[in-house]
Amino acid sequence: MDEKQLQDALATVFAADSALYQNRGFQRRIGYGVRPALVNIDLANAWTRPGNAFTCANCDAIIDAVNALLVPARRQKIPIIFTTTAYAVTEGPNSDMGMWGKKIPAEVLQEGSEAVQIDSRLNRRPDEHLIVKKRASAFHGTMLAGFLRAAEVDTVIVTGTTASACVRNTVEDAIAEGFRPIIPRETIGDRIAGAIEWNLFDIDAKFGDVEPLSNVVAYLEGLNGAPR
Amino acid sequence: MDEKQLQDALATVFAADSALYQNRGFQRRIGYGVRPALVNIDLANAWTRPGNAFTCANCDAIIDAVNALLVPARRQKIPIIFTTTAYAVTEGPNSDMGMWGKKIPAEVLQEGSEAVQIDSRLNRRPDEHLIVKKRASAFHGTMLAGFLRAAEVDTVIVTGTTASACVRNTVEDAIAEGFRPIIPRETIGDRIAGAIEWNLFDIDAKFGDVEPLSNVVAYLEGLNGAPR
Amino acid sequence: MDEKQLQDALATVFAADSALYQNRGFQRRIGYGVRPALVNIDLANAWTRPGNAFTCANCDAIIDAVNALLVPARRQKIPIIFTTTAYAVTEGPNSDMGMWGKKIPAEVLQEGSEAVQIDSRLNRRPDEHLIVKKRASAFHGTMLAGFLRAAEVDTVIVTGTTASACVRNTVEDAIAEGFRPIIPRETIGDRIAGAIEWNLFDIDAKFGDVEPLSNVVAYLEGLNGAPR
Amino acid sequence: MDEKQLQDALATVFAADSALYQNRGFQRRIGYGVRPALVNIDLANAWTRPGNAFTCANCDAIIDAVNALLVPARRQKIPIIFTTTAYAVTEGPNSDMGMWGKKIPAEVLQEGSEAVQIDSRLNRRPDEHLIVKKRASAFHGTMLAGFLRAAEVDTVIVTGTTASACVRNTVEDAIAEGFRPIIPRETIGDRIAGAIEWNLFDIDAKFGDVEPLSNVVAYLEGLNGAPR
Repeated sequence: MDEKQLQDALATVFAADSALYQNRGFQRRIGYGVRPALVNIDLANAWTRPGNAFTCANCDAIIDAVNALLVPARRQKIPIIFTTTAYAVTEGPNSDMGMWGKKIPAEVLQEGSEAVQIDSRLNRRPDEHLIVKKRASAFHGTMLAGFLRAAEVDTVIVTGTTASACVRNTVEDAIAEGFRPIIPRETIGDRIAGAIEWNLFDIDAKFGDVEPLSNVVAYLEGLNGAPR
Repeated sequence: MDEKQLQDALATVFAADSALYQNRGFQRRIGYGVRPALVNIDLANAWTRPGNAFTCANCDAIIDAVNALLVPARRQKIPIIFTTTAYAVTEGPNSDMGMWGKKIPAEVLQEGSEAVQIDSRLNRRPDEHLIVKKRASAFHGTMLAGFLRAAEVDTVIVTGTTASACVRNTVEDAIAEGFRPIIPRETIGDRIAGAIEWNLFDIDAKFGDVEPLSNVVAYLEGLNGAPR
Repeated sequence: MDEKQLQDALATVFAADSALYQNRGFQRRIGYGVRPALVNIDLANAWTRPGNAFTCANCDAIIDAVNALLVPARRQKIPIIFTTTAYAVTEGPNSDMGMWGKKIPAEVLQEGSEAVQIDSRLNRRPDEHLIVKKRASAFHGTMLAGFLRAAEVDTVIVTGTTASACVRNTVEDAIAEGFRPIIPRETIGDRIAGAIEWNLFDIDAKFGDVEPLSNVVAYLEGLNGAPR
Repeated sequence: MDEKQLQDALATVFAADSALYQNRGFQRRIGYGVRPALVNIDLANAWTRPGNAFTCANCDAIIDAVNALLVPARRQKIPIIFTTTAYAVTEGPNSDMGMWGKKIPAEVLQEGSEAVQIDSRLNRRPDEHLIVKKRASAFHGTMLAGFLRAAEVDTVIVTGTTASACVRNTVEDAIAEGFRPIIPRETIGDRIAGAIEWNLFDIDAKFGDVEPLSNVVAYLEGLNGAPR
């Protein structure tokens, strides 16, 4: 099965599934709020550059798409957060990989290494927070929920990698915590065929609005500063 | 595309994806621990019986499979938990649906209604906890993590519905919290074609071990009481 | 040492401590926000009526003070939440008391019993949420943070019992989660001499604003509905 | 009121309060488990050295006491964690201080500064985790709970500063999460008169066992490696 055949097969399945969801009242639109934050998941070298166990496909285009969001986000001065996943101790009983190293090759994500630094093409600035997480979700075991709430954020725009783990789990937690998740389709990456498609399908049905990048850019450009 | 064609197409995709994952060091086995708990997700009437927006497919077989686990689990006296999803207030700004009612038809899950009661075919006993959750994960906004830790549980067997939301998110949180998630394949349900397959594929690659029911039954039968 | 002597001794200590705190930059005012919620901690019969291990002192006056808040809170239609602490299983390894029953007599707080019902003098209404918590903080293992964020709350007014456990821990979590905690002094109870004074002193120095009841009532009466 | 008079006054109050607690079933002993971790709260220069807004009293003795624990803890190879509190952005709406900077002088705790480094007299080793927290509790918004569970820890020994904020809140969360908190009295610091006494009194009554340092040292020395 080549890429074209896979896409066709998934499109057929999703059409049938959407009919059921629409009939049942799923796939509603959560909509944009008035105070967004931009949360960029694991756009570090291990994911965005070739040669790592975590390397994803198509990352040049994803970096470009995220940069297209960063321009209006920075102009509007909304909170911008980057995450990476990294471990201080990758051997023995004191490892901060917890149980995750028993499922995935977490041991290559050594804290302090070049692999876990944010991709330099994104030009992270000093007031754009870097959250070093240990688990898939950017909310799990991090300051993120408390930070966003104190900043009076109501909408969380999620980009990055991967659709089948860290992005999806972050979106699930975002809506659970009471935020509106928005996922610009062109900014999401993964490493296996199909994973972007089926995970964004599930997300759009139940957890957040998957939107064209251009819509999210237009939304950010149109913000005129919610009163605090 | 009929069911057979869908299964064949997904099997082809998963074979290619598995080759990449194996090569990269994903799809490891987390393994069974010595003190399991059994967590049954949303096996309430809204999901297990016909006629509800949340009704899933194939629930008679799923109920049978869960009962096959409950027999040794009860004999071994491991902690058993059931969850349901229900809301006390389904209209207005004071609703406990939070943002979720903006994506899914949560308003049909009225607390106290027959729809949100655990399916009577499972014979829930008084010392088997019923957690009324508001979000997808059984861990989010509930006592579950604290309860399991105090009970010295190291392994969480997850059953129920749905693969594409509550089961998956519970498994993601279980491994994040430091437990070993085990998912008996025959006990998992959903309502759309493909969702069980691709979600269990993602789970098995990254978050927990998807196992044949017979293996999990044998594991429970073989427990001889971990020393506390 | 009688009550008068205790109060005098504590006043002397607090004066010296406040001088240090003021000099160091503690005891700042967090201030009121624009969208408050009212969270009433454990004003159930076990705490408010005589004869229980959890019975607190002076509860008639506390109930009156909370009712003085409920009048404007209900008129302004702000979210109102009551908590109680109750356990479904109070014996054996499956107990939901977790570790807490090893420190306090949690076993008397049986779920479903009259003891854990909210005091009828507060006339809890159906759309005022009842959270059954297992731990001290109203946020720990409950839906509270997600609910408040989805309701766009920025300020949490905390009342109830006890100053030295559930009220204090709820306030600590409220500010950690990004809310402004306000504690109306006359609405807070405890069962041992000194505990209200020293806990409110610590809270006011570091975690939330301890305010006269009249100020909080005036604040609620003056709300004119923050735009959503 | 001098220090001696304060101690006498508090001793009188605590004696009366203890009588009530004993009669009611509080002040139980939670006891030591078999797999402890040592969690050292905010023993960084801002707290342990003179001249900072956060400087605590009596820190030379506290450092000695913590070192007395570190010797057997390191020999037994139990997990050892240090926390500090530090902020990357201390001005403007993107601050990670959240609401806490509105109550306390959090702005002096700049990430990367000497002030927030662990006191060098404790000789923190590379495999002893450093958690940079944003809130009072070492559990809030950090990996701690997930890490401890994955490491199969059942007992959390808590040392450090301050009794009235970070130590207390960490202990409250530790028992809530299902661990046995043990607090060696000589290792706990604060900056205001009375705060150590009344907070350890409350903790011992409800949240964890306050123990003489020598008992905790003896416990660590006597561990012979729980089977995993």
